[in-house]
Amino acid sequence: MCPAPLENNQLNLHESNGENGNGYGWFNNAIPDSPSSSPGSSRAASPMMFQSFEATLSEKLKARLESKDKFYSLEFFPPRTKAGATNLISRFDRMRAGNPLFIDVTWHPAGNPAGDSETSSMMIAHAAVEYVGMESMLHMTCYGSSKEEIKSYLNKAKDLGIRNILALRGDLPNIDATWEIDPEKLNFATDLVKFIREHFDDYFTICVAGYPTGHPEAESYEMDLIRTKEKVDAGADFIITQLFFKASTFKKFVDDCRAIGITCPIIPGIMPVQSYDSLRHIVKLSKLSVPEEMKEIIEPLKDNDDAIRNYGIHLATNMIRDLFQSGYAPGIHFYTLNREVATTAILKQVGLWKNEMKKPLPWRLSADPNRTEEEIRPIFWTNRSKSYVYRTRHWDEFPNGRWGTSDSPAFGELKDYYLFYLASQSPKNELLEMWGKDLKSEEDVWGVFTRYITGELNEGGVKIRRTPWNDDELSGETALIKDQLAKVNQQGILTINSQPSANCVPSSDPVLGWGGSNGYIFQKAYLEFFTCEENVLAILQILGRFPGVNFQVVNKSGSVNVTNIKGKKPVAVTWGVFPGAEIKQPTVVDPIAFDHWKTEAFGLWTAQWAALYEADSQSRKIITDISENYYLVNLIDNDFPQGNCLWQVLDEMSSRRKLNEMTDLSQSLAGWVQVQRKNSLYY
Amino acid sequence: MCPAPLENNQLNLHESNGENGNGYGWFNNAIPDSPSSSPGSSRAASPMMFQSFEATLSEKLKARLESKDKFYSLEFFPPRTKAGATNLISRFDRMRAGNPLFIDVTWHPAGNPAGDSETSSMMIAHAAVEYVGMESMLHMTCYGSSKEEIKSYLNKAKDLGIRNILALRGDLPNIDATWEIDPEKLNFATDLVKFIREHFDDYFTICVAGYPTGHPEAESYEMDLIRTKEKVDAGADFIITQLFFKASTFKKFVDDCRAIGITCPIIPGIMPVQSYDSLRHIVKLSKLSVPEEMKEIIEPLKDNDDAIRNYGIHLATNMIRDLFQSGYAPGIHFYTLNREVATTAILKQVGLWKNEMKKPLPWRLSADPNRTEEEIRPIFWTNRSKSYVYRTRHWDEFPNGRWGTSDSPAFGELKDYYLFYLASQSPKNELLEMWGKDLKSEEDVWGVFTRYITGELNEGGVKIRRTPWNDDELSGETALIKDQLAKVNQQGILTINSQPSANCVPSSDPVLGWGGSNGYIFQKAYLEFFTCEENVLAILQILGRFPGVNFQVVNKSGSVNVTNIKGKKPVAVTWGVFPGAEIKQPTVVDPIAFDHWKTEAFGLWTAQWAALYEADSQSRKIITDISENYYLVNLIDNDFPQGNCLWQVLDEMSSRRKLNEMTDLSQSLAGWVQVQRKNSLYY
Repeated sequence: MCPAPLENNQLNLHESNGENGNGYGWFNNAIPDSPSSSPGSSRAASPMMFQSFEATLSEKLKARLESKDKFYSLEFFPPRTKAGATNLISRFDRMRAGNPLFIDVTWHPAGNPAGDSETSSMMIAHAAVEYVGMESMLHMTCYGSSKEEIKSYLNKAKDLGIRNILALRGDLPNIDATWEIDPEKLNFATDLVKFIREHFDDYFTICVAGYPTGHPEAESYEMDLIRTKEKVDAGADFIITQLFFKASTFKKFVDDCRAIGITCPIIPGIMPVQSYDSLRHIVKLSKLSVPEEMKEIIEPLKDNDDAIRNYGIHLATNMIRDLFQSGYAPGIHFYTLNREVATTAILKQVGLWKNEMKKPLPWRLSADPNRTEEEIRPIFWTNRSKSYVYRTRHWDEFPNGRWGTSDSPAFGELKDYYLFYLASQSPKNELLEMWGKDLKSEEDVWGVFTRYITGELNEGGVKIRRTPWNDDELSGETALIKDQLAKVNQQGILTINSQPSANCVPSSDPVLGWGGSNGYIFQKAYLEFFTCEENVLAILQILGRFPGVNFQVVNKSGSVNVTNIKGKKPVAVTWGVFPGAEIKQPTVVDPIAFDHWKTEAFGLWTAQWAALYEADSQSRKIITDISENYYLVNLIDNDFPQGNCLWQVLDEMSSRRKLNEMTDLSQSLAGWVQVQRKNSLYY
Repeated sequence: MCPAPLENNQLNLHESNGENGNGYGWFNNAIPDSPSSSPGSSRAASPMMFQSFEATLSEKLKARLESKDKFYSLEFFPPRTKAGATNLISRFDRMRAGNPLFIDVTWHPAGNPAGDSETSSMMIAHAAVEYVGMESMLHMTCYGSSKEEIKSYLNKAKDLGIRNILALRGDLPNIDATWEIDPEKLNFATDLVKFIREHFDDYFTICVAGYPTGHPEAESYEMDLIRTKEKVDAGADFIITQLFFKASTFKKFVDDCRAIGITCPIIPGIMPVQSYDSLRHIVKLSKLSVPEEMKEIIEPLKDNDDAIRNYGIHLATNMIRDLFQSGYAPGIHFYTLNREVATTAILKQVGLWKNEMKKPLPWRLSADPNRTEEEIRPIFWTNRSKSYVYRTRHWDEFPNGRWGTSDSPAFGELKDYYLFYLASQSPKNELLEMWGKDLKSEEDVWGVFTRYITGELNEGGVKIRRTPWNDDELSGETALIKDQLAKVNQQGILTINSQPSANCVPSSDPVLGWGGSNGYIFQKAYLEFFTCEENVLAILQILGRFPGVNFQVVNKSGSVNVTNIKGKKPVAVTWGVFPGAEIKQPTVVDPIAFDHWKTEAFGLWTAQWAALYEADSQSRKIITDISENYYLVNLIDNDFPQGNCLWQVLDEMSSRRKLNEMTDLSQSLAGWVQVQRKNSLYY
């Protein structure tokens, strides 16, 4: 009988503590996220490569091989806890900025890897695709699973937008078990590859594992090579190797693969040494031998983690340079151990961290193949893009940013969003420290908004890195109008979204640019804020002299909902002109979508902010009162070549308010709106 | 028995000759188009009012009544001959520039008015709607027609985009016949109004006739008023009156109508007196009395046509001013007698000729309600817009200027176009005088193109007002680049379409402006021309240094068909940014549509030009050779903010050509294209 091609190993990699010893490679064990990892800074508008998600990973690999443009991928394992999942998604956000070709998520058979929990392998890979916008590969092991189970996993992955599978045999259920062949089940990685091709044709790009020193359980290095060829012949698109310590090991493996007719791309798996203990641990588990010269350097450093990490960075950097220069590696796969410092350092040293890449659109694309047609989004969710993607996840097609009243696709409920781990990246305490544990007045709230804009620390010495309406720190674009924003927030114009005007800015502009080469970008100035009734009335009165400004005003109950946009049609606020193309207009102010956004935006006051405080507290009352009494306003200055008149409008607000207060004729907002409606000026 | 409400009259208006005595009003007799009417000048891009064809005529009337914005309409009768039809359509084109609210076409029961001939009432009204873009009303008489016939007429009108009917009883078939009531048929105008409402609900706006002095056959003026009210009560939307000679006659009629409860708009019908004979003729037929004071002035002038016409203009102008100032007339209906001079003069004097009106889009809209969704057209048919409308007339929806290869709606055959009277507005002799009776060389052809651009007379002293590719004289926009165009045409770059670049031009610009207020217009420079192989090769070689230029090159056989537009996707070349709206991009260069245009454009050389000459003549051979050997080229300069690099490209062409001729390495166009295709630069 033909011996089974051995996969991975029979060992369990037990959980280790703290910074030392995380899981690695395709050992399918979940290891908790390192609690001490720095949250760092994440930006909403991270640059990414100008790539289309219409192409499959297999096609992208081919293109990279042809262009000899080196790439890298990053491997992560699913976290243990919901908080760990939130941190991991934040890490994805940050590492996406460096433009990996893809990330992959390991499979943890003991932990319901295809389940719906926030920590399952399936859901982590899905989140990376859907909300972070990364090409993602899901590991999958088959040993011990029925064909029906595997088919349901693959169907679920497909439904969730995942289209890359790393096909593995998997570990034995426990250390005392023996391999048993069950003809009703899938027993080998080769079986899994065949099964995927048989049932899903070319939908999935399939990767398989390669062992540069042979699998520890293989009869021989040569026999293992033959098993590897069988996996490729069954339909795998490329190979990622187990880790190794010397470039020559990988080179020999590639030469041997080519010699027996394996022609697909072979990507070296690199694990930066991060600590003495983790190295020893991994070596023991994977039955790899550490070269003597490496041991000689590491042993004396064993108590100095920093020194070992730096040595690991040095070692990996040199090895990658060798593999690139010799032409053996088309790219690099990193076993990140869910950590980012060492990997990022290496990527930057070898020039693979490409954060100067272009954005195809001003907002972040989802990597879900079902969303490749998406070209337009409403501006309202710019700072909460994950919420937008989540709420539109069931759409069959993307209605170009237009939401008809009758024929609109169902817009997902806001409450669903809170059920998901994307709800908040910060624990309650952190939020209280940022937003204030004990609010005394509305002005305290204005201060939170102002400090979020300026970046100044609050009275407790804490930096306000986010608000309920802004998932991330201020974007580069918003920073352009920071001073004006800070000024109006101090006056109770609580801004939650804005963009400056732009007239014919080159598409290569580092802040405002997006899309292909040699294009020109245009923007209308936009401002969205909460403010009190007196301010709204004064602003609307002033706007009578600014016919080029469109506005919408709405309150929580919807009793006031008014605009001067005729027919409630979408208004383009960001567009680009490119060679050989139609005009692209990816961001619109859509009055119908605003009706959905309004509910979410008002809801965030109470659900994310007021809920932090005791039920009867003054703090909660202040936030609740604001949500009940303030209005949500958006303003568009349509006259983009003339700059931005919105600041002037807001500058005049105070004196107009005073005038209103001084005169007996001061009228209510509702009364003003009624008169304007009668004159067909408002709708 | 209740007497029938009398309609019109029982007389036949016989054909008269020359300038004197044309048909008028709703006397449904066809009278030949005046052969001496001046063809004048017509422009492709005549300004028109910024109006939506989505509104019905009834709604537009209501809006005008509310805004007190005076309007006018123009009545024409169908011509006798195909040449007359061509002339009439040209007259529509010219008079459309003055922005009438609508035109109407009389019904000629004896002449197969609902037939498919170019001269039928139905087809003339259809042409006005479809190709000229005018709101049009079709007269229809019912007496003597079966219900089935009438229904089929109405269905046909609806299918042809006509949505306004002037409902009439009609004349007796001959002077000796008597009125007979047949309950199986429609006998009265009231019956026709009811029938339309019953079978077509509100689809049609319905007009009926009013007689300010009572119908000549009515029992009494009062009885006629009651019949008029019956027609309105049956569902008519408004009334147009028979002609009259004194403002007081109309005022009394309106007062009397209001007194018996007629509330709909009543529009006075005005016939400018154009000659002594025609006045006498009309008065006799309509049994109207000419006021004594008028007779006294006209009699002494009876041999001075000019003086009578001037008096007619004076009289009508004064009457219209009175009717407007007194508030009795919301607008004016003109019995034009198919002539334009007097009507246009009056319109200009009373300030109704509104040629400063805005264009809603850069190309002329069709008034067909089926085309109200049309927003985008390919640039190729800019100077042949009737051909474009004709070829897309069967489309159910307008695919936004994009022609998919597989899912494209059928594009009408070119040959159909030639069957229609829109084919050519000039007789063969006129064309020969413009384009040359005896061509000696290709350079003679270059000269025709050059003189069309410059407006210089040719050797025979004739102005070249059109070419096979340009229905009309040079547009205002093209005039902006006249000098450059003339220069390149002299060198054998035979331009047939072009536009200058525009960067943020106000939408109110008299030449480039279109769309609503406070917008900005942008254009990419575009140039389309026929030229020889050597020129094409040199141009393509030069374009290697101009990556911002898109091109398409094709020959008649299609053996060369090449572009650098990836994916053959449409390129926007005209777009506008407006307050409260998405970006409008009404003109595109669509490579798929170009494949259709190419066939038409090459076909015009032979069908319109070569066909003018004897079969074996040198002239015909020159034109045929050009069509066989020249290439059709279009160029887009995408870098619109930098102006226009296309002239520079063409400036360099000659020296590059010389270089090609001097070197042994000179290569063929096909060879050059092959190399560029291999390098994935051309598609």
